[in-house]
Amino acid sequence: MFKKYPSFNKLEALSKDPLDLTKEGVLNSDRIHSMHLSACSWKMLFGTERVDSKVLEGLTEMAKDADVFTKMQKMQDMEVMNFVNGCKSEQRMVGHTAIRARDLPKKASDTAKQTAKDSEIELEKLEHFLKENTQFKHMVVCGIGGSYLGALAISKAMKGLHRTDRTLHFASNIDPDKIASILDEIDLNKTVVAVISKSGGTMEIKAQEIMLKNFFEQKGLDPKNHFVMVTGKGSPMDNPILYKEIFYMWDFIGGRYSVSSMVGAVPISFICGIKVWKEFLQGASDMDHHALHEKEVTKNMPLMGALLGIWNRNFLKMDTLCIVPYSSSLDLWAGHIQQLYMESNGKSVSKEDASYIDYDTCPIIFGTCGTEGQHSYFQAIHQGTVIVPIEYVGFLHPQRGIDEEIEGTYNQEKLLSNLFAQAISLARGKSSTNHNQTFPGNRPSRMLLTHTLSAYSMGALLAYYEAVAAFQGFIWGINSFDQEGVQLGKLIANKIVDEYKHHHEKGRYSGDPTLEVETAFMKEIKSLDKGPSKKFMAS
Amino acid sequence: MFKKYPSFNKLEALSKDPLDLTKEGVLNSDRIHSMHLSACSWKMLFGTERVDSKVLEGLTEMAKDADVFTKMQKMQDMEVMNFVNGCKSEQRMVGHTAIRARDLPKKASDTAKQTAKDSEIELEKLEHFLKENTQFKHMVVCGIGGSYLGALAISKAMKGLHRTDRTLHFASNIDPDKIASILDEIDLNKTVVAVISKSGGTMEIKAQEIMLKNFFEQKGLDPKNHFVMVTGKGSPMDNPILYKEIFYMWDFIGGRYSVSSMVGAVPISFICGIKVWKEFLQGASDMDHHALHEKEVTKNMPLMGALLGIWNRNFLKMDTLCIVPYSSSLDLWAGHIQQLYMESNGKSVSKEDASYIDYDTCPIIFGTCGTEGQHSYFQAIHQGTVIVPIEYVGFLHPQRGIDEEIEGTYNQEKLLSNLFAQAISLARGKSSTNHNQTFPGNRPSRMLLTHTLSAYSMGALLAYYEAVAAFQGFIWGINSFDQEGVQLGKLIANKIVDEYKHHHEKGRYSGDPTLEVETAFMKEIKSLDKGPSKKFMAS
Repeated sequence: MFKKYPSFNKLEALSKDPLDLTKEGVLNSDRIHSMHLSACSWKMLFGTERVDSKVLEGLTEMAKDADVFTKMQKMQDMEVMNFVNGCKSEQRMVGHTAIRARDLPKKASDTAKQTAKDSEIELEKLEHFLKENTQFKHMVVCGIGGSYLGALAISKAMKGLHRTDRTLHFASNIDPDKIASILDEIDLNKTVVAVISKSGGTMEIKAQEIMLKNFFEQKGLDPKNHFVMVTGKGSPMDNPILYKEIFYMWDFIGGRYSVSSMVGAVPISFICGIKVWKEFLQGASDMDHHALHEKEVTKNMPLMGALLGIWNRNFLKMDTLCIVPYSSSLDLWAGHIQQLYMESNGKSVSKEDASYIDYDTCPIIFGTCGTEGQHSYFQAIHQGTVIVPIEYVGFLHPQRGIDEEIEGTYNQEKLLSNLFAQAISLARGKSSTNHNQTFPGNRPSRMLLTHTLSAYSMGALLAYYEAVAAFQGFIWGINSFDQEGVQLGKLIANKIVDEYKHHHEKGRYSGDPTLEVETAFMKEIKSLDKGPSKKFMAS
Repeated sequence: MFKKYPSFNKLEALSKDPLDLTKEGVLNSDRIHSMHLSACSWKMLFGTERVDSKVLEGLTEMAKDADVFTKMQKMQDMEVMNFVNGCKSEQRMVGHTAIRARDLPKKASDTAKQTAKDSEIELEKLEHFLKENTQFKHMVVCGIGGSYLGALAISKAMKGLHRTDRTLHFASNIDPDKIASILDEIDLNKTVVAVISKSGGTMEIKAQEIMLKNFFEQKGLDPKNHFVMVTGKGSPMDNPILYKEIFYMWDFIGGRYSVSSMVGAVPISFICGIKVWKEFLQGASDMDHHALHEKEVTKNMPLMGALLGIWNRNFLKMDTLCIVPYSSSLDLWAGHIQQLYMESNGKSVSKEDASYIDYDTCPIIFGTCGTEGQHSYFQAIHQGTVIVPIEYVGFLHPQRGIDEEIEGTYNQEKLLSNLFAQAISLARGKSSTNHNQTFPGNRPSRMLLTHTLSAYSMGALLAYYEAVAAFQGFIWGINSFDQEGVQLGKLIANKIVDEYKHHHEKGRYSGDPTLEVETAFMKEIKSLDKGPSKKFMAS
């Protein structure tokens, strides 16, 4: 599909001679003031991207060629949008916008309206649970991948809004060291464990849960009084005998899109209070509304984010995207977006006919918070051989209102100065007779700016990225809502686990010939045991 | 230089038809057992890389063409190796191996020996300081970039070896929210602040220090009794009137190579004890020795790491490298290596004659710990359109010895099963009539495996990566030890900070025409203030 859009050829022609940001006079204040848009407390500035009016025209046409608003409407109305025609696929609705919808317009679909109501019921259940169970001062979340990364990133982002009488911990991994380190910090008597697994069958979660339950039992505590579950209705873990409360999610919420469901609601409402959580949902819902109803392409923030990304990816041929929020509270944000984008759009099969596509999809996403990256890998972004586009996120005021004037400026102003300086220096570059001090420039970026990192702006930011992922998937003609690529590894891992088990039981490996390579790996790592002396062990 | 090596053409010819790992019979146990090497408690398995004996021959020749051992010898002997011929450059020695050298051989240079002695003096000073100042239960480290990221990553990695009566915090950013969040968790009476700045002039560090000193003074505490400094001798912050103790580093230690200096010693000895720190240095020193003295290329672990990286980068044309340790304690490790590699080798100028080079250097480095990535961006690594080589890090035993047998296997075994399963599934792939469930495979990776995450193995691992960076720089013919690329952003940021200052003083922006774009950004962000209503603010 993608390469058959009339706009594709137009943009490809324009990409032969794209705007040069280093050229005298190109990057000026008029350009900055004319290239921005606003939505839900956010402003996007994209004057430092390598686009001009013709490219913007081409991108606008591409949005139309791909019929993105019809598709967004279908998604928000919960038609089946998780599919690949021509082969067996998940064939599911997509519901992450419906579950957080506030004030749905009359013309919204009945399914979306019902889903909004169902979510409201879960939220009320949670509100009641929190009111009735004030004995809990610590929460441990057992989740992995989509069932924890977004919630963790956002709970960190909202640190300034945390209740100071509570703590929140994520036992995301089966790594036994991680759980041991959490147990150092909590009082099990006052702890509630939230186990999160949509399918109720994830290896890591089951292992964590059993390990944690044992600790409670060793302390003479009944896990039933301390464990709550977030899972799909009817999953193997939907068992009220085992849990103090069960909160539901649905199969139309993919893990990476699940922050707004009970997956995020349970931990974030616990640590910030339900009122903060509702403001968060309001921000997300407002951005969903904007994404669907702002039909002027260059005024639609997530759609412009999607299109600028596609310009950099498919026409300027950039393999990566760096996400850099200038806020240390957002230090896990790039990780969540990495999951959201790469799991959604790291695909190679057309949604329309299951054919293999012949163009690039999701770039590699990475990033850290600023200014930290500046003192580190930004060296390569300025002077290396790979061109890396950047999306900055910045705030006018600090979250907690604590700031300090030092040598005539506030720290928050220093942060912003750095953000602006990076965008300018990467765009303009700098020539020098000293080649080692030359900056080629012409390296594109855009900025997302808002007042402060509030629950509302954070909700809107999450929904921005989710809508970018959806729009890009629509344009590339791929299914952004399944994740077949994670299956093969799981399958083989389970086989190897069985092999270990066999080894424990029989005292030797099964020798199953299809496991030849696995067995070789095991032999190699086991042979380490015979190796070096004691001095190599932890003291 | 690089493209003129005789081995370059040989490898380029071989890269036209590289080994296909998906081919029946290619990936078998013989291959796994024949493609590994060992050093300093570690084993590297590289049977899942796309190399055969001819490629290994070519890479071995390339190591010789680049004369890597002579250069490594010069580096470890502290000759001036931080230079770019033909333009003004830093012209410094490189000393990160010398400062941690244990039992230097007689033939080591006098400079290296003297440096080892000087470092020993600083270490003794630190040992004495820790013995005399047991009143401190919390340490806050003020550092940024190279002055903190490695130390933070390693202190997290060694969590299982921490003293339980102490806490360690890193205030790495000028973000005021970060410092506020640390102050929530500590008792200033029992707190020592370690300020780390080689130059003594970094904006972020100065701002942090002033902010923190104010908090001590507000509590009626004299900062002089609570602040220690790690800096270069003679720097503006080398002032004994202001600090309880000053520990020295030297200009021949680049920030990103400074973990083994007082930059890492102060926080890690505080939290783990000096004995653990010395074991760490021993591991690093042993790996340095191996890197220099194991002249058989295919048995030299960092050299093989460097060469396999160059094969993937320059011949198989891969833009990125993903680092995935299967240990949640190493969750910041990829971030440190991102800094180390990208700041060292994200360069475009030949070291020999300052000419612009016409081949690729450092790839984009990213990664997280496993299994977390598997549930996230690994979708794109398995089925996306960018081929991403992976370096796994794995451990046979958990760090703290706490593990649980669940359904017949231990959690650590499940971790390893997952690691092995990823390597196998990415290499072999899987065909299917369902295109959406097809895995193209042929995606390369290698593994670093050891017993357990001990101080010794962690030291060796750090030195492995540092030696890979050095070897790759030698082969690419670039200077891995300067960082001119971070300067332009700093320069412009300082200008913008001045502009803010001017604005505070005069009530308006200076209107300096060279700051036109900066001013436009400022106007845009300021205009947010007039925007949306209260509901957008944090509650």
